[in-house]
Amino acid sequence: MYTAPILVAGEWRQAAECGRFQPLNPTTRTPIELYFPVSSWSDCDAALEHAAQAAHALKQLPGESRAVFLERYADKIESAALEICQIAHEETGLPLEPRLLNVELPRTTNQLRQAAAAARTGGWAQATLDTSANIRTLRAPIGPVIVFGPNNFPLAFNGIAGGDFAAAIAAGNPVIAKAHSAHPHTCQKLARLAFAALQEAGLPAATVQMLYGTAREDGLRLVSDQRTGASAFTGSQSAGLALKKAADEAGKPIYLELSSINPVLILKGALEQRGPAIAEEFATSCLMGTGQFCTNPGLVILPKGDTADTFVRQCAALFDEAPVGTLLNKGTEDSLKRAVRQLQDTGAECLTAANTADPNRCCQPNTLLIADGQQFLQNPHGFQTEAFGNAALLIISSSTVETRQILERLEGNLTGCFYTAADGTDDADYEQLEPVMRNKVGRLLNDKMPTGVAVSPAMNHGGPYPASGHPGFTAVGIPASLQRFSKLECYDNVRPHRLPPLLQDKNPCEAWRLVDGNWTQGDVTHL
Amino acid sequence: MYTAPILVAGEWRQAAECGRFQPLNPTTRTPIELYFPVSSWSDCDAALEHAAQAAHALKQLPGESRAVFLERYADKIESAALEICQIAHEETGLPLEPRLLNVELPRTTNQLRQAAAAARTGGWAQATLDTSANIRTLRAPIGPVIVFGPNNFPLAFNGIAGGDFAAAIAAGNPVIAKAHSAHPHTCQKLARLAFAALQEAGLPAATVQMLYGTAREDGLRLVSDQRTGASAFTGSQSAGLALKKAADEAGKPIYLELSSINPVLILKGALEQRGPAIAEEFATSCLMGTGQFCTNPGLVILPKGDTADTFVRQCAALFDEAPVGTLLNKGTEDSLKRAVRQLQDTGAECLTAANTADPNRCCQPNTLLIADGQQFLQNPHGFQTEAFGNAALLIISSSTVETRQILERLEGNLTGCFYTAADGTDDADYEQLEPVMRNKVGRLLNDKMPTGVAVSPAMNHGGPYPASGHPGFTAVGIPASLQRFSKLECYDNVRPHRLPPLLQDKNPCEAWRLVDGNWTQGDVTHL
Repeated sequence: MYTAPILVAGEWRQAAECGRFQPLNPTTRTPIELYFPVSSWSDCDAALEHAAQAAHALKQLPGESRAVFLERYADKIESAALEICQIAHEETGLPLEPRLLNVELPRTTNQLRQAAAAARTGGWAQATLDTSANIRTLRAPIGPVIVFGPNNFPLAFNGIAGGDFAAAIAAGNPVIAKAHSAHPHTCQKLARLAFAALQEAGLPAATVQMLYGTAREDGLRLVSDQRTGASAFTGSQSAGLALKKAADEAGKPIYLELSSINPVLILKGALEQRGPAIAEEFATSCLMGTGQFCTNPGLVILPKGDTADTFVRQCAALFDEAPVGTLLNKGTEDSLKRAVRQLQDTGAECLTAANTADPNRCCQPNTLLIADGQQFLQNPHGFQTEAFGNAALLIISSSTVETRQILERLEGNLTGCFYTAADGTDDADYEQLEPVMRNKVGRLLNDKMPTGVAVSPAMNHGGPYPASGHPGFTAVGIPASLQRFSKLECYDNVRPHRLPPLLQDKNPCEAWRLVDGNWTQGDVTHL
Repeated sequence: MYTAPILVAGEWRQAAECGRFQPLNPTTRTPIELYFPVSSWSDCDAALEHAAQAAHALKQLPGESRAVFLERYADKIESAALEICQIAHEETGLPLEPRLLNVELPRTTNQLRQAAAAARTGGWAQATLDTSANIRTLRAPIGPVIVFGPNNFPLAFNGIAGGDFAAAIAAGNPVIAKAHSAHPHTCQKLARLAFAALQEAGLPAATVQMLYGTAREDGLRLVSDQRTGASAFTGSQSAGLALKKAADEAGKPIYLELSSINPVLILKGALEQRGPAIAEEFATSCLMGTGQFCTNPGLVILPKGDTADTFVRQCAALFDEAPVGTLLNKGTEDSLKRAVRQLQDTGAECLTAANTADPNRCCQPNTLLIADGQQFLQNPHGFQTEAFGNAALLIISSSTVETRQILERLEGNLTGCFYTAADGTDDADYEQLEPVMRNKVGRLLNDKMPTGVAVSPAMNHGGPYPASGHPGFTAVGIPASLQRFSKLECYDNVRPHRLPPLLQDKNPCEAWRLVDGNWTQGDVTHL
């Protein structure tokens, strides 16, 4: 039985297998006839050893060579776009168009190119010069980065092509990608393109390596190994926190993007003035991509009253009428079912028809649940169970005071939204409630659903624990996302010719640098 | 028996004591007749509760009010300089002049004033605007910060006056300072001045709070409490790592500055050309302040040969001739004695005369130890035992290859130095060895001892684990040190009048902001 080879040390080699697995086609519930290996520790060890060597070699090369790699890789992904998306569709059930081909793939290549531009100029490194004391510091590569991608973005967050990958490479680090077990074939296809691009760009062969599966304990060893610089994980809270514990104990940085229910607060004036439009917006945002976004609006809080009743009925109807999307895999299906049951056991009532879902594919009915503010306050943790997928919970609050209490009991989230009236009628409530919400979320929105995560320098895709592991970092947005994979390197009285190019007086790349307290793209001139 | 009151919620109140302690005068080995309380959890809980409220209130105030506080505090410290330094001298044995009065106190007020300037303009927050997408992000206060200061800088790193304190306050956070048990009276004096300055500046009363002592488990609870934003600890590895574990498990950031032996590498050409001058520099740097600096040069590596023998003899003589300084306290004395014994047990030979130290004060003889490269390689961990105080270890390496192996086995350090010949004879060795050393230290120096830590924007006082908890942060250097106490707050489509001042189009404070990819102090202009 043929098992796919892993990519280690610049060659596709058979894994030292301790198991193998097949992906599943969630649209048909049938296994895909491809076999991928679960590596034993010797594969991980080899990858780490070569990554550590590659890290040293990479440091001698200019940012330009990483830029060329990232751009060639983006080109190759575009050239093979249809094939990649067909494979990703087969493994994830995500629609080929527009989702994969017209949205996620362009986002992926855009990220790679933005990262390339950052690597080329070097401004992300925030070189800081004190010319009179002759002390100079920059953000330098942190060392081999282990990237664990999630199930829900087979391209844009893929461990071998997504945001964390692009950021880690652009910052000058080799990456060991752990393919997601739900879409290994997609990962394989991308890894082949990455490796071809890497050879063209002349980067060290072990700059990009990939394993398909590891035993749980080997994952923990990877993030805590002394050769590892840092790790990035996007996925479930339980897996992420286990990795965090191992990395923390070894003093190794790990960046997490975990669960989030993304509270949406609709204030009274907004509800009265444009309830039906907001209901449409909410249903669209919540059911898009079968709700499988980390910024999916999973908790909507609205003020009690006739308008709320109308809003609730409308949302329930929209959920019932909308087509039921396919879920990523059996695991997602099972955990969504479990979460919905848990919310009902906690006391939420189901508003939607439990129409039988198609038994031939991975799916669950579009599900809208409801509870009131007092119920929430009696069991805030239970009502914050994340139902990852096409489900959401409405909370009817009886007063602004109650709403504030609800907000105070929220756990950390990636996003939080306020819908408010345009005429100022909600301003007093907003002023009371905003400071509480602000403290619980990484990104605060007004009159906009949270599901779009623009790749903007000003984006924050992060938030208070347990939405992420540290509220000072973002997984999306260049240059900030690169800084996660760096360490501060200071040069004190080091002779000029020994300084890294970004710290020398001349600044031919016109990198933005903080020189004697002022940001400038110029050279240092000695008067 | 009178016990000093703690500062909680804007009042000096009696602690809910579960014990009390007296500081010791290390110059006379006699207890100082003052009693300070060990608080029980109810004091910690009260401080946290009030700090959380103060955090909300502080967020509504402009940076200007924190700037005024920090400046008034600096003024008051200067006005009371002699009294403060006399108290600090009594508790720490550090010389009144020049150390406390002419070096450490001015450094302290300088830090407070630099932090004030940063708080006033707000550029430290790195406001990042994407005007076309209308997404805007800044670094916002992280919440109440617990600061544990070290024993060796009673002013400049004091939990209630030092660098971490200034950074946390400037970034907009209330501080709960844990006084160091070796100099509580100094802390009390400073806290009184801080509180007076705070009242003048009109900050919330609980912006600055202070406890003297807590049970070990209450320290762990403080750093992991849900109301805590972050913590900062400078001190011993064992205490720091216990706090880190508790904070990590709760998902709370903690910034550590732990042990460091600060390797100094003297290359062949430098040794031959100016060995005697380097020996003088080394002995001065190592014995200054009785060696009680986190950047004390504790490990010197030099190439075998006659010149090395001469260097070694000279250093031993300098150590024997130099006056023996007083150590901070009994704890420092005991741990230095233990560390020296441990290094000897590992195989290091003592070069200095074990002249009986003065039994009437806390001290140990100036101690210089020696071992060769092979010994080091056989037990690298043992030979990296930190001997905090007036002691150092010389390693004689038989070749550049051996030196490289030694560097490869170094643990994370704050600093690392190369002494090289001016005429280029050491350049080949430097090129071979620098990448290894670079990877192990936060600050790399050429031809300069590491003991001066300039308060420069380009300083990095941090390094790879276990020198610190995360190699991307620095404890010294403004604005970078402020960023540790912040979280990213993103505003997506938020109405203009609801944005924090730093994110609005107008930029009256002329804060440096990253607007559409360019750093500027200007307003946003819509064409």
